[in-house]
Amino acid sequence: MPSEHRFDPNFTDAVINATGPGATPRVRQLTAGLIRHLHDFARENELTVDEWMAGVELLNEAGRMSDSKRNEGQLVCDVLGLESLVDEITYKLASTAASEPTATAILGPFYRHDAPQLPMGASIVSGLDNTEGDCTWMHGTVTDFRTGAPIAGAVVDVWHTAPNGLYEQQDPDQPEMNLRGRFTTGADGKYAFYCLRPVPYPIPFDGPAGRILKALDRHPFRPAHIHFLLTAPGYKPIVTQIFDRKSKYIEDDAVFAVKDSLVVDFVPFEGDAKAEFELPYDFKMASFEDAKKGPVEGTTEESASM
Amino acid sequence: MPSEHRFDPNFTDAVINATGPGATPRVRQLTAGLIRHLHDFARENELTVDEWMAGVELLNEAGRMSDSKRNEGQLVCDVLGLESLVDEITYKLASTAASEPTATAILGPFYRHDAPQLPMGASIVSGLDNTEGDCTWMHGTVTDFRTGAPIAGAVVDVWHTAPNGLYEQQDPDQPEMNLRGRFTTGADGKYAFYCLRPVPYPIPFDGPAGRILKALDRHPFRPAHIHFLLTAPGYKPIVTQIFDRKSKYIEDDAVFAVKDSLVVDFVPFEGDAKAEFELPYDFKMASFEDAKKGPVEGTTEESASM
Repeated sequence: MPSEHRFDPNFTDAVINATGPGATPRVRQLTAGLIRHLHDFARENELTVDEWMAGVELLNEAGRMSDSKRNEGQLVCDVLGLESLVDEITYKLASTAASEPTATAILGPFYRHDAPQLPMGASIVSGLDNTEGDCTWMHGTVTDFRTGAPIAGAVVDVWHTAPNGLYEQQDPDQPEMNLRGRFTTGADGKYAFYCLRPVPYPIPFDGPAGRILKALDRHPFRPAHIHFLLTAPGYKPIVTQIFDRKSKYIEDDAVFAVKDSLVVDFVPFEGDAKAEFELPYDFKMASFEDAKKGPVEGTTEESASM
Repeated sequence: MPSEHRFDPNFTDAVINATGPGATPRVRQLTAGLIRHLHDFARENELTVDEWMAGVELLNEAGRMSDSKRNEGQLVCDVLGLESLVDEITYKLASTAASEPTATAILGPFYRHDAPQLPMGASIVSGLDNTEGDCTWMHGTVTDFRTGAPIAGAVVDVWHTAPNGLYEQQDPDQPEMNLRGRFTTGADGKYAFYCLRPVPYPIPFDGPAGRILKALDRHPFRPAHIHFLLTAPGYKPIVTQIFDRKSKYIEDDAVFAVKDSLVVDFVPFEGDAKAEFELPYDFKMASFEDAKKGPVEGTTEESASM
């Protein structure tokens, strides 16, 4: 078993102590922690120059593949569970109340800031004929998790993949902004729209993240899910996903984002020629004031600025 | 103080256990170790989504800046001390003998594989007039560290910066391969060449590595040094640097590569119109057989393939 004592015992402290007095406390804390963990990792595993350089080349290649439509560095973190963990850390809000805000899940690399603003009840499906996908009527209410009151002016920003497993920006055959939309609630807090029942799909595996998965003997698939970003005046934003209980890969998501409370049931729907399934789902948001009562002090501001 | 118990205690194990049976033992070990340290780092410091994403963007940018002439990912590691540490780990060879092989130092990002092969005693300086730099006569013997015998056929591959602080590939005004050369020893194991007394210079600080240094309130300078890669049939290659004792930054190298045994003295030199300084330095190499007696079993092969 490797022992630290074989190596210079003062080296890591020397690197950390090189930090000057002008560094902010948070930068100082984060870099010291990162340096200590990276060095411990290298010593514990007797990392060789060749192994380290292979890692550098993998990260450089991830950077070269990344642009406005693809974030491979993020994807590398995702397959290592880091985005899901950071998501849990940032949005954690311990509550002793019987009710809790909607759980969060990772943003993922396919979010676009400027999805179309649509009238309530509209469809986010465009450019597909009626035979593709299972049309779904999704609806619910956005409420304050503590008071249960409906939230007016909440924006439900939704996006999901087409039946071929691709987001619109990955697929030249889909219309711009297909399967994306933003819906703003009225006084009753209700939202509703038509979408498709999503399908499982692989994360892009033609780059470094895919090579990591292959080396780890893992598949690249995610269970079927729909993404949401909820914002509302005075409330902490919620980034989340809901997952189809009947989907393959629900137990082994390639990016570790599934949480029990986010698993939902698509219900066969009668009486609407435009939808085969109904998906009722309510979102519960925490006001900034309530969110600050949580134990993760000091992170609320950053969360809000996302 | 943050406590792990606030977060899902099973998450990291779940990520590690997703590794399939087809992963090699070394890949399994390294990724498990990396995942555990990255997750612990995130939990201990309550890393936020915004902070993590800033790190991802920094690494993506480093990748985009990297090409055949610049390796910014490597430079990011260097300012965190990681390359020097991995160098120490890989090349460590504990010896109880009175003599030890020449210590190693990092390769750095400016090595080129195809430096010109020059006759013994030649100059690696080209394209500079005589007033630039302090010309130096460097010479010595390459020996077996255990027997003291000279090593024939050893290749001394040397490179250093011009007086303006730039390596030739960074500087369109320098001739191709300026201040680089390869010299092969004869039966006496002796080598000799003319070079310049090097100067301190900053690592490139116009990218992510520079932003890290700035955030840490650190300077980007390296003390004056000359790089070497030594190879010889049957011997473990040595990647190293020697450092001018009188150089500024000898105590605070931006990439943490200085070791006491690699600090040298440039001696004023009389009797050679072509050199103002003499630099005698002997290199001691370990045979693969001796190297394998060291405690770092299993890393010799990788080192040899570098």
